[in-house]
Amino acid sequence: MAVLRSYVSGEWHTAADEGVPLHDAATGEEVARISSKGVDFAGALEYGRRVGGPALRELTFHQRAALLKALASHLREHREELYALSARTGATLGDSKFDIDGGIGVLFSYASKGKRELPNDTVYVEGNVEPLSRGGTFVAQHIATPLRGVAIQINAFNFPVWGPLEKFAPAFLAGVPSLVKPASSTAYLTARLVELIIESGILPEGSLQFVAGSVGDLLDHVTAQDLVSFTGSASTAQKLRAHPAIIRNAVRFNAEADSLNCSILGPDAVKGTTEFDLFVKQLTTEMTVKAGQKCTAIRRAFVPASLLDDVAAAAAERLAKVTVGNPAAEGVRMGALASLEQREEVRRSLKALLDAGSVVFGDPENVEVVDADAERGAFISPVLLKADPERSEPHEVEAFGPVSTLMPYTSTEQVVEFAARGGGSLAGSVVSADKEFVRDVVLGAAPYHGRLLVLDADDAKESTGHGSPMPQLVHGGPGRAGGGEEMGGIRGVLHHMQRTAVQGSPAVLSSVTGRWVTGAPRTEGDVHPFRKSLAELKIGDSVVAGPRTVTQEDVDHFAEFTGDTFYAHTDPEAAAANPLFGGIVAHGYLVVSFAAGLFVSPEPGPVLANYGLENLRFLTPVKVGDSLTVTLTAKQITPRIDQEYGEVRWDADVTNADGESVAKYDVLTLVSKEQP
Amino acid sequence: MAVLRSYVSGEWHTAADEGVPLHDAATGEEVARISSKGVDFAGALEYGRRVGGPALRELTFHQRAALLKALASHLREHREELYALSARTGATLGDSKFDIDGGIGVLFSYASKGKRELPNDTVYVEGNVEPLSRGGTFVAQHIATPLRGVAIQINAFNFPVWGPLEKFAPAFLAGVPSLVKPASSTAYLTARLVELIIESGILPEGSLQFVAGSVGDLLDHVTAQDLVSFTGSASTAQKLRAHPAIIRNAVRFNAEADSLNCSILGPDAVKGTTEFDLFVKQLTTEMTVKAGQKCTAIRRAFVPASLLDDVAAAAAERLAKVTVGNPAAEGVRMGALASLEQREEVRRSLKALLDAGSVVFGDPENVEVVDADAERGAFISPVLLKADPERSEPHEVEAFGPVSTLMPYTSTEQVVEFAARGGGSLAGSVVSADKEFVRDVVLGAAPYHGRLLVLDADDAKESTGHGSPMPQLVHGGPGRAGGGEEMGGIRGVLHHMQRTAVQGSPAVLSSVTGRWVTGAPRTEGDVHPFRKSLAELKIGDSVVAGPRTVTQEDVDHFAEFTGDTFYAHTDPEAAAANPLFGGIVAHGYLVVSFAAGLFVSPEPGPVLANYGLENLRFLTPVKVGDSLTVTLTAKQITPRIDQEYGEVRWDADVTNADGESVAKYDVLTLVSKEQP
Repeated sequence: MAVLRSYVSGEWHTAADEGVPLHDAATGEEVARISSKGVDFAGALEYGRRVGGPALRELTFHQRAALLKALASHLREHREELYALSARTGATLGDSKFDIDGGIGVLFSYASKGKRELPNDTVYVEGNVEPLSRGGTFVAQHIATPLRGVAIQINAFNFPVWGPLEKFAPAFLAGVPSLVKPASSTAYLTARLVELIIESGILPEGSLQFVAGSVGDLLDHVTAQDLVSFTGSASTAQKLRAHPAIIRNAVRFNAEADSLNCSILGPDAVKGTTEFDLFVKQLTTEMTVKAGQKCTAIRRAFVPASLLDDVAAAAAERLAKVTVGNPAAEGVRMGALASLEQREEVRRSLKALLDAGSVVFGDPENVEVVDADAERGAFISPVLLKADPERSEPHEVEAFGPVSTLMPYTSTEQVVEFAARGGGSLAGSVVSADKEFVRDVVLGAAPYHGRLLVLDADDAKESTGHGSPMPQLVHGGPGRAGGGEEMGGIRGVLHHMQRTAVQGSPAVLSSVTGRWVTGAPRTEGDVHPFRKSLAELKIGDSVVAGPRTVTQEDVDHFAEFTGDTFYAHTDPEAAAANPLFGGIVAHGYLVVSFAAGLFVSPEPGPVLANYGLENLRFLTPVKVGDSLTVTLTAKQITPRIDQEYGEVRWDADVTNADGESVAKYDVLTLVSKEQP
Repeated sequence: MAVLRSYVSGEWHTAADEGVPLHDAATGEEVARISSKGVDFAGALEYGRRVGGPALRELTFHQRAALLKALASHLREHREELYALSARTGATLGDSKFDIDGGIGVLFSYASKGKRELPNDTVYVEGNVEPLSRGGTFVAQHIATPLRGVAIQINAFNFPVWGPLEKFAPAFLAGVPSLVKPASSTAYLTARLVELIIESGILPEGSLQFVAGSVGDLLDHVTAQDLVSFTGSASTAQKLRAHPAIIRNAVRFNAEADSLNCSILGPDAVKGTTEFDLFVKQLTTEMTVKAGQKCTAIRRAFVPASLLDDVAAAAAERLAKVTVGNPAAEGVRMGALASLEQREEVRRSLKALLDAGSVVFGDPENVEVVDADAERGAFISPVLLKADPERSEPHEVEAFGPVSTLMPYTSTEQVVEFAARGGGSLAGSVVSADKEFVRDVVLGAAPYHGRLLVLDADDAKESTGHGSPMPQLVHGGPGRAGGGEEMGGIRGVLHHMQRTAVQGSPAVLSSVTGRWVTGAPRTEGDVHPFRKSLAELKIGDSVVAGPRTVTQEDVDHFAEFTGDTFYAHTDPEAAAANPLFGGIVAHGYLVVSFAAGLFVSPEPGPVLANYGLENLRFLTPVKVGDSLTVTLTAKQITPRIDQEYGEVRWDADVTNADGESVAKYDVLTLVSKEQP
């Protein structure tokens, strides 16, 4: 049997020994062998830093996003092949889709987020300009730049496709190369995934490396510019976190550990309610999807004491219908655990849990299987327990398989406290239609959770469920869950970047960030900036227009024309009593409309449309007789990589005769890349 | 001599032994004794969690901000007393102000940020609602809630006032109680600060505890809900980071370690330029303020090789004018190091540095002092070295005193690479008027820095300088600098909170966050929501108004009236050629003006003003003949604690006859708390 190859330093590497065998979870047959013997780990890191990092940093966020999208499409075309291999990990077709389509979905999601929420640039500008001085000559701006190291990604066995992809996508988008190390037992699937990726030629060389087998001395070589992300057991997370090189270099270390996640049924959700059924269905689904081998699966199910028997009966009834067996066979609802070792581990944990409770459904030692050998394959029955929540075991012992424990509670405060006993969880859920109960539980349990799902009749049809981490949302939880955060949309990208506060004059900040900053020089040329194409326009290009005097007739007319007869514009006596105005003021909408009338360049040209406004603030009331001047300045220019136009954000500052700003805002336009 | 008291579990605690003496840095006299013997550390943590946390969580962000402001004012009244005590740490009056006024300034800054940037609520809502489904019944929102533990703050000796206050302010604002532990040598000043705070009675009991002396077994008792923040040496940071309880519980650990910060002179800044003078002045100032005992001080000064001699001469000239001595004496520019032990430490480091270079100015072993005993006090001369930047020592050995090393460079790439050799720094600076050089250095050095200052003729007058962390900006740096982040405005507050993704129906999210979310129920009552006071208004209160048909006359008239004769509104042929519109469209400003005319309730009432708009997007072109309907919904209600009114954010959705949104935006209004 072939040994899985690693892909390091630009080459496929075959191990210097014969490796150890990996077995089909359902049949026990050997699938592949694994070893990383001979891999030069220090060299691989250096290669990533020297080749992969620079290649990625050449690209803008939008270019990286486009590559992620291309990669996602490529993998989607090959998913049937991956499904077939995935079945050997014990996964049913549904499980495989969860893993494989889920992983591809993360790529698509990051591609889309990158395009919509990141600039078409290499520097990320975070938050507002921070004024640091009265005179405005000294200001600051936070920026984020990619770390110059390698993102080392150590993944768990249960999601051999989703795991690597959900870590890779944000790193890649950030401009940081990845080194992927899967857990051994299912590494053959990740290995094929990586082959598909590398063979596609879509990614810049060096942006993805892969190690099948042990990581050897890899971690001894990490520097402060590298990152380590880990998914797996809490005990391994602790060992890695305390690694001398990680400690010494304050390496960014992110752990996502399986945790004792809870699901809470509300007191309103008695038998016969939609929420009762949703709770039971979700509980049994979470137990059986991936044979319960999900870091996010429900381990602790809290139900009102009075509903415990009803829930137990209903759940047992559903579990009795779950067919276990060959994951590729027709009608099988639950496949095998990933390995015989995992089954031993689950049985050990079950013993500890049974000290604190009793079995509601299932036999830890026996299971009827379809089209498979129950002993050669790593099959186990779903096991539902019930236990006393005052015992510590149900809150601390995790059986990483199709195992959950039902526990009773008697008050909102109590169930929040029980939830907290998990010591920090990735995901929790509340199933209830009682908004007040939901609010109390969510806000009470939030400090202990990375994600909380509220399930009820309103969202059940579209809900993605308790166990599904979403690329848009943070994935991770405090304490027992590892204390980390993955994904979370752009948060996961920023995790791979260094945040730096840059202080200087507005002109310097404009130059560093590529965005015009208030106080930086403006260029008023002979050509109106609306007459410049995206290619010709520069940040700082300005037009000053006006003045235009606002008359009583203007205000009266605008009120009548628009119907906006608010008293502050129409009733001198009432307006005088207004504590903020002390008299008639012009409509804010009139001010911005007049400003547009002043700054616009009417003839057809590169400016295609005004698609919005941002951050509009009316700063000084405009009275009759005030004359308005507007200064419009190109602030940010974002070419779209897939269109003939791009976005231009303009700073608009409308001032009165005293030079006071009466309104400030950003005008958002679409501008052609070339002259029409 | 009295032993400094701790303040734990609601009581002043006097040590169970006589403690060890603390000495006046300038005279060697005993100032106080220190010991924490007998403190129940586990009890103190539990007290913070049980008493301090709940008391803080009762308050809104705005209420906490107001208490910070009151505290800042109180301390400002007592600063003379603190200055006097500060002199005993070796600090000149200027140094004392840097520490004491700086710390008070952080409180004011957080008070102001809290009021402006955080809601008057107990839950922080982060980012946008994340759509998770096509039908819109399943969405998500990230929230942040205070951790339920204690923020343990272990501070350095060099800033006995600023250090504790800059850690306390964001924790307090987040709703997390603090336990402050100062470094021993200057703990008497922090002790007095804490006395002033506790005696003021401003803070809720339990929100601030204080330990003078060793932390004993404190860290053994930390849980996943506690935090540990440390400022001090890199070696202690590593020891703490690897503490078993911190590792085991994935405790949030933030370290800010002194680092080998660099300052870079640009090649343009030859002798005679403003920037040359700024560089030399900043370098010598950074060396001598606080006798160079600043984590952010310049340790490595990179200058173009051709300018090395000029810089050395100019710096030596300035250093020669620095009077060293009794910090309380007239004319003294530099006081003593904090202790004789520190002086020994500095001399040891100087020896290592001198292996790689030579002295430009100063004698490590001798210094002339004014009004003091050079041996009994911890005095040392400023020492400027020059060294070969290819040697490792200048990049790795930090002499934590008035010591810097000049090093030559020959290209931009090279100096960026030299900067990176510090292994991660808190702060760096570039002194140059060459924007391109500045941009290259800033973007090249950013991944290695938490803060970068660009100093030039434009910002010099208002610049706060290389060595001053600002509460608005992140303070911390990667690797050698500890890998942490403090302050950074609201970022520092969020560091003390758990981020949780909450998934559910729009109605559930509205209920949990207290903000109306698109898709949540609206209430259209008999009373127009503009007629409701802040006290009467509820989120979800709505008005639907319209339809109003947009006529050709409206568009023509608006163009003529406002002057906005952009071709898409006025020239049918040209508008038809526009790729986005394909014909005449109504002005966006016309649409929002008509919408206001529809939704407004004109008579005097609780609504005082429209002070702005946010997130306006024109989503569908409005053609002549389209009829517009607007739905306005109360989205967020924020009473101001110090005004008779508050802010109401309204969701505005303008739709056409087909029900398509043509414009969406938030309308910002001020509304009276009571009916007028």
